[in-house]
Amino acid sequence: MILDDPGFTTCQWLSRPGPLCSHVLSSRIRLARNVAGFPFSHWASTGELAKVVSICSNALRNCRLLSGSEEIQLETRAALDLSFLMERHQISQEMAHGQTQRSVFVQSTQTLGAMVAEEDHIRLQVLLPGLNLHEAWHILSELDEELANQLNYAYSERLGFLTACPTNVGTGMRCSVMIHLPALVMTRQIQKMINAVAQLGMTIRGPHGEGSEIKGNLFQISNQVTLGVSELETIEKLYHITEQIVDSEKKAAAQTIEEAEEEIQDRVWRAFGILSSARKLTSKETLELLSPLRFGVTSGVLKEVSLDTLNEIFLCTRPAHLQKRAGKPLDSKERDIVRAQFIKERLKGATC
Amino acid sequence: MILDDPGFTTCQWLSRPGPLCSHVLSSRIRLARNVAGFPFSHWASTGELAKVVSICSNALRNCRLLSGSEEIQLETRAALDLSFLMERHQISQEMAHGQTQRSVFVQSTQTLGAMVAEEDHIRLQVLLPGLNLHEAWHILSELDEELANQLNYAYSERLGFLTACPTNVGTGMRCSVMIHLPALVMTRQIQKMINAVAQLGMTIRGPHGEGSEIKGNLFQISNQVTLGVSELETIEKLYHITEQIVDSEKKAAAQTIEEAEEEIQDRVWRAFGILSSARKLTSKETLELLSPLRFGVTSGVLKEVSLDTLNEIFLCTRPAHLQKRAGKPLDSKERDIVRAQFIKERLKGATC
Repeated sequence: MILDDPGFTTCQWLSRPGPLCSHVLSSRIRLARNVAGFPFSHWASTGELAKVVSICSNALRNCRLLSGSEEIQLETRAALDLSFLMERHQISQEMAHGQTQRSVFVQSTQTLGAMVAEEDHIRLQVLLPGLNLHEAWHILSELDEELANQLNYAYSERLGFLTACPTNVGTGMRCSVMIHLPALVMTRQIQKMINAVAQLGMTIRGPHGEGSEIKGNLFQISNQVTLGVSELETIEKLYHITEQIVDSEKKAAAQTIEEAEEEIQDRVWRAFGILSSARKLTSKETLELLSPLRFGVTSGVLKEVSLDTLNEIFLCTRPAHLQKRAGKPLDSKERDIVRAQFIKERLKGATC
Repeated sequence: MILDDPGFTTCQWLSRPGPLCSHVLSSRIRLARNVAGFPFSHWASTGELAKVVSICSNALRNCRLLSGSEEIQLETRAALDLSFLMERHQISQEMAHGQTQRSVFVQSTQTLGAMVAEEDHIRLQVLLPGLNLHEAWHILSELDEELANQLNYAYSERLGFLTACPTNVGTGMRCSVMIHLPALVMTRQIQKMINAVAQLGMTIRGPHGEGSEIKGNLFQISNQVTLGVSELETIEKLYHITEQIVDSEKKAAAQTIEEAEEEIQDRVWRAFGILSSARKLTSKETLELLSPLRFGVTSGVLKEVSLDTLNEIFLCTRPAHLQKRAGKPLDSKERDIVRAQFIKERLKGATC
């Protein structure tokens, strides 16, 4: 079902409002879990993998919180489906490009799910709109408990949860926020902020995590440390850091507008003009132009467009989304044309 | 009166339709004439200049074709007025920046006029919309005859009309067309065309003649030779060259659209998007963006905007026009803002 509907509203971690969602697009927490007595996914034989996948899948099917979820066998799916799931942040890049048996559970709200046979046997995840880490943790720890009651987790008293990659050992938790910081970039404060965040054990990357490029002033902030800290400590820390960064961003935005309102107006409206008129738009240019628009909306300079529309454009103009909507494969040139059409349609009615 | 109305419609050499006006904005012919027995303007003493100005002005006042004209004493006018008259092509750059006694006659249609005490004692000029050199010559030669009946022109049987600058000796005539050639520029055929035109005794410059920059793919083609040729020969030649160039431009445009319609659509609509949305626009950027819009309109790619609107924007967003409209002096930053407002207003209603 998720694969049949490329519409925006089904993607509730982005389409619904959330705390500070003017700046924080979404909050995500994932837990890496493995079943004791089995090799990690990449070291398992086909037979061992099939067995652990079966055990994990059965356990997930029994979880109350996942009732009504879809279970998608990834190795049977076309590349387009996998890209689509990745664009919805339901599977990792690694899952999208894998070859072996693996699957994903997706709750109907698309805010809760689980990957089976990623590098860890199970990765549970919650994605919520805005800055909403506590609620995310509340849901995820409940799901984790449901699962722990059924599975014998690979766990060490000394280290905590054991994971395929040593960087996850301990809590096995990665919590992150996707955040838009145009004013900190414009005022060149962003590097200082990145350094400060790193000193606090957090890391800043592109919106798809490790190795993903930063485009359109969208950053992902996540915890680096999983060992020797509690989950709640980590979440609290990320929460407060994010609050502070949003605060700095707001101050920088206000200052920029005070100092150069006409310049900002001009930049925002030019981006609007190009997005609403161009006949071809690449994915990269779209992200770059959405940034001044989002800035315009959140700072009050642009009242004619809603954040909702910008979020919809952000999600639904990604390559797999466009192809799903068209109902057929499109090469990159064709995508640029339908992307521009989609955006024009969505921005229509906004008068300047 | 001309100085009190910065509106578009009074400028009939641009606001009215004319032959081939999709590509040829205007046709202009001017005649340089001097009164025998007086030094050329720049060599004349103040007394001599006053006397020759008086003689010329009286003669011009008596011309039937100039009846109802305004006579403007330039040395008494503010710099803004002079710039405005230059933007309307009623006076030359030289006239605008002069210091001495000098004046201009402007017919109510703004298509016929005369400068007094430019480098020559008199410069008569006709400006008509589109490619309309024959009609222009018809009017101008009639005015010339009216004047010749009253004045003793400096004339040599061997050379023809004597002029302050040797490049005008002979016919004293400069005929020119202002022409938009985006496709020849895009397809890199323009330099070949410029060379060919030069070999035919014509020259290509920016829209304000000698020393003026080429912006927005607008060119002025004019005759170089005034000696040993007749006026009508020269006009015929320029007419046919212009027809041929328009033909080449149309072919290049059709070919470009056939080969890259999406690319052209995109370029045209992006220009539209920026022009209709930007909050600040320099004069240079405006001209550069008007070019793809005009191309879009003339080639049929853009049906939502009229040539008339583009011509109005072209004329009325020039610096002096903007200040006249605002009713006060504006610095360059202020002009960029009101220019963008004016354009946005004019493009409003054109849906994309």
